[in-house]
Amino acid sequence: MSENGFLEDAARAAHWIASYRENVHDLPVLPRVRPGDVAAGLPEEPPEKPEPLESVLADLDDVIVPGLTHWNHPGFFAYFCSSTTDAGVLAEFLAAELNQNAMLWRTSPAGTELEQRMVEWVRRFVGLPDAFDGLILDTASSSSFTALLAAREQAVPDVRQRGLAGRSDVGPCVLYISEEAHSSLDKSALAAGFGLDHVRHVPVDERLRMLPAALEEAISADRAAGLTPVMVCATIGTTSTTSVDPVREVSEICERTGVWLHVDAAYAGPAAALPEKRGEFEGWERADSIVLNPHKWMSTPIDCSVLLFRNDAAMRRPLSLTPEYLRSTEDGQNLMDIGLSLGRRFRALKLWFQFRMEGAEGMRARLRTHIALADQLAGWIEEDPRFEVAAPHPFSLVVFRAVPPGDADPDDWNQTLLEAVNRDGRVFLSHTTVDGRYAIRLAVGSARGTEQAVQEAWSLLTGEYDRMAAG
Amino acid sequence: MSENGFLEDAARAAHWIASYRENVHDLPVLPRVRPGDVAAGLPEEPPEKPEPLESVLADLDDVIVPGLTHWNHPGFFAYFCSSTTDAGVLAEFLAAELNQNAMLWRTSPAGTELEQRMVEWVRRFVGLPDAFDGLILDTASSSSFTALLAAREQAVPDVRQRGLAGRSDVGPCVLYISEEAHSSLDKSALAAGFGLDHVRHVPVDERLRMLPAALEEAISADRAAGLTPVMVCATIGTTSTTSVDPVREVSEICERTGVWLHVDAAYAGPAAALPEKRGEFEGWERADSIVLNPHKWMSTPIDCSVLLFRNDAAMRRPLSLTPEYLRSTEDGQNLMDIGLSLGRRFRALKLWFQFRMEGAEGMRARLRTHIALADQLAGWIEEDPRFEVAAPHPFSLVVFRAVPPGDADPDDWNQTLLEAVNRDGRVFLSHTTVDGRYAIRLAVGSARGTEQAVQEAWSLLTGEYDRMAAG
Repeated sequence: MSENGFLEDAARAAHWIASYRENVHDLPVLPRVRPGDVAAGLPEEPPEKPEPLESVLADLDDVIVPGLTHWNHPGFFAYFCSSTTDAGVLAEFLAAELNQNAMLWRTSPAGTELEQRMVEWVRRFVGLPDAFDGLILDTASSSSFTALLAAREQAVPDVRQRGLAGRSDVGPCVLYISEEAHSSLDKSALAAGFGLDHVRHVPVDERLRMLPAALEEAISADRAAGLTPVMVCATIGTTSTTSVDPVREVSEICERTGVWLHVDAAYAGPAAALPEKRGEFEGWERADSIVLNPHKWMSTPIDCSVLLFRNDAAMRRPLSLTPEYLRSTEDGQNLMDIGLSLGRRFRALKLWFQFRMEGAEGMRARLRTHIALADQLAGWIEEDPRFEVAAPHPFSLVVFRAVPPGDADPDDWNQTLLEAVNRDGRVFLSHTTVDGRYAIRLAVGSARGTEQAVQEAWSLLTGEYDRMAAG
Repeated sequence: MSENGFLEDAARAAHWIASYRENVHDLPVLPRVRPGDVAAGLPEEPPEKPEPLESVLADLDDVIVPGLTHWNHPGFFAYFCSSTTDAGVLAEFLAAELNQNAMLWRTSPAGTELEQRMVEWVRRFVGLPDAFDGLILDTASSSSFTALLAAREQAVPDVRQRGLAGRSDVGPCVLYISEEAHSSLDKSALAAGFGLDHVRHVPVDERLRMLPAALEEAISADRAAGLTPVMVCATIGTTSTTSVDPVREVSEICERTGVWLHVDAAYAGPAAALPEKRGEFEGWERADSIVLNPHKWMSTPIDCSVLLFRNDAAMRRPLSLTPEYLRSTEDGQNLMDIGLSLGRRFRALKLWFQFRMEGAEGMRARLRTHIALADQLAGWIEEDPRFEVAAPHPFSLVVFRAVPPGDADPDDWNQTLLEAVNRDGRVFLSHTTVDGRYAIRLAVGSARGTEQAVQEAWSLLTGEYDRMAAG
């Protein structure tokens, strides 16, 4: 279809990438466009005639790049980093060519079995027992939703056949998470038909960890009131502050009450590969299901979410359906049976390339570098009277706030400071609230990140502080 | 991380792809492996040490390729084709590097606005009115599920807050599809908590089209019995035979009864770009939502599913949630508000590359070629007493069966014939049942397909027929 040959175009694309990498440091992490600016540069009608790649790459530079938020910029510290390495980028290139769809074993034996093996490698990497099987989905939202459906199937008799509505034998279905849990859990409960009224946001202690006693009380009260406790989700590494729920205690409550335990370790999960961090993961091996996203802290290109579980049959029950046109005779596992999406792209390839080209050793080293940089930043903050650390920092995120001079409102002051720092363009930080108070988040975790970028962020924060204080 | 430079490795990957393309014709479309063969070639433990790309590519050849089902092989005629072109493959390469996550407008202004523009280009390409907005999701399963949640929100008072279970004011929720609809619809109803008992498989006429009178009757009977009709899904191009439901008549029923109309045109949708096929799409412009998958018949790399809808607010209502750590000040649209997944990769880029590098003209020409090849095959079948066409073929799929000699059981005979043809390795066809009888499906639709591959399939079918008849 192209006017050029494939190899020539592939070389053009590769050179474009190399040049982007060289120049990305000079681009503002957060682009300086307003809503509608990018769209204004794109015709309303699709073109009739084909054009060579060169024209498209020219417009990529002129129209798209000025509107990109540069997730692969070393100064990207917002949310959780999601960055990439050569291994992942090259694997995605090959995966697009191979265009596997591992819905049935038959439609991609290698896609199916590589996926299973990569899940096993991830499981071994983070030190979880053999009892866990798993598969790869797109995002933690999908993984947690898939776990929730399995939990619902276990808690609600015959839900697959009869559904939830119009039944007098089933009370409202309840999901238990901490006040600090990720919104994707609330969203899963919405999608599964639980309703927001039936998501219990269990209170947390001063370290932002779910209070087990409050959880147990909530489950008992709901059972007594005729409700149906379905799932508890404990988080190891919350999005707001990376707090860690007491998973062992939570798991004991789940065992006693017969409620499914899901663990959201979407961000922090890879850190279980470090013996010195294993303590944070105590008890997660007792979960019924665990989600861990390589596309966050393992620097795998988005999207790649690993869902681990103990009971394969329980995971297949909620959604498996095989119409005639998808029937096949081989007894290999059909991964389409778990999760909502029938089509399943070749996400395992990038994990394989990463493990091979980086080695488990290289992956652990990267995690340690990130943790050390976060600790270093936290140290600077602790020593500086202008700032304070706002929450524990067990992993690579530091949550902190400025202590404004005089009687300025701390929330407004921090928000203004954050906006000023982000406006500079060299870094991008995001925010949250801790105990209802505004706080700044700096998440180390980019594969392209550097010590220099963290220093730059700190010097921008302190510089802007002084400028504002001088006012 | 790699021992080589990026440009050198990118060139290696590009050459690997070029060589794969040259040789794929000589590989069996359906690989000759048994369950476990691929896994046996992969160590159980992840490697500790990094290795250069060359080693990984060597194992890709030795371990993975022999276990791939070659979706990009010209002889791939199973299911619906999902193949790729240079434009899509190169765009995925670049997208992996840019690693955009268009969850918020702020996290990728260009990703967000390019996605909206590409949805608009697709909408214009297929001739739908301006009233439709949309976004890109991974698969038709997700798109239809997202539509079902919006329909559920409309039909069930306060479901977002109160959920479905334990309410005496809401009867079971019902989804209406034809007997020929795709299993992803049943799966959506399972996930949404409807239960299989509440999926009505409306009977079809002799052309496998949903019977509108039967649909209307089912809705009335359910309403009278206190059930909650939620959504009707009409299909344009069913997976089994590409039959086309009478969408105009169905839309009138939906308007009269106030039930949400979703149209599944996941496969056939792109054919609406051809004036000569527009008749098959009559009435789809009256739907509340439509799904159309570029990763099927538009030769976009998997995954890419376009969900179109009329009422933006209705689509946002079921799932939108914005926790503090995702709050932003810009008033651009946050695409995370629609659909389950928070993380959203840069799928728009490949559509943009395709429209630019192939032109709408090139895309229409490809569709016409596929339709002509299917018509040609159907002509051969009609003229040959050994075979018969089993269903109408309005698009690029032909469903047919062999007429066995003597009193052989036709189902067994066709199954044996299909297995023999697939064993040859040059082609891969799949099967279905039509009116309960086994039939063979040959779906033209590969971007890499050729007239020669269709001829080869036909000659294999007739040759195997004769061999089997000779005994």
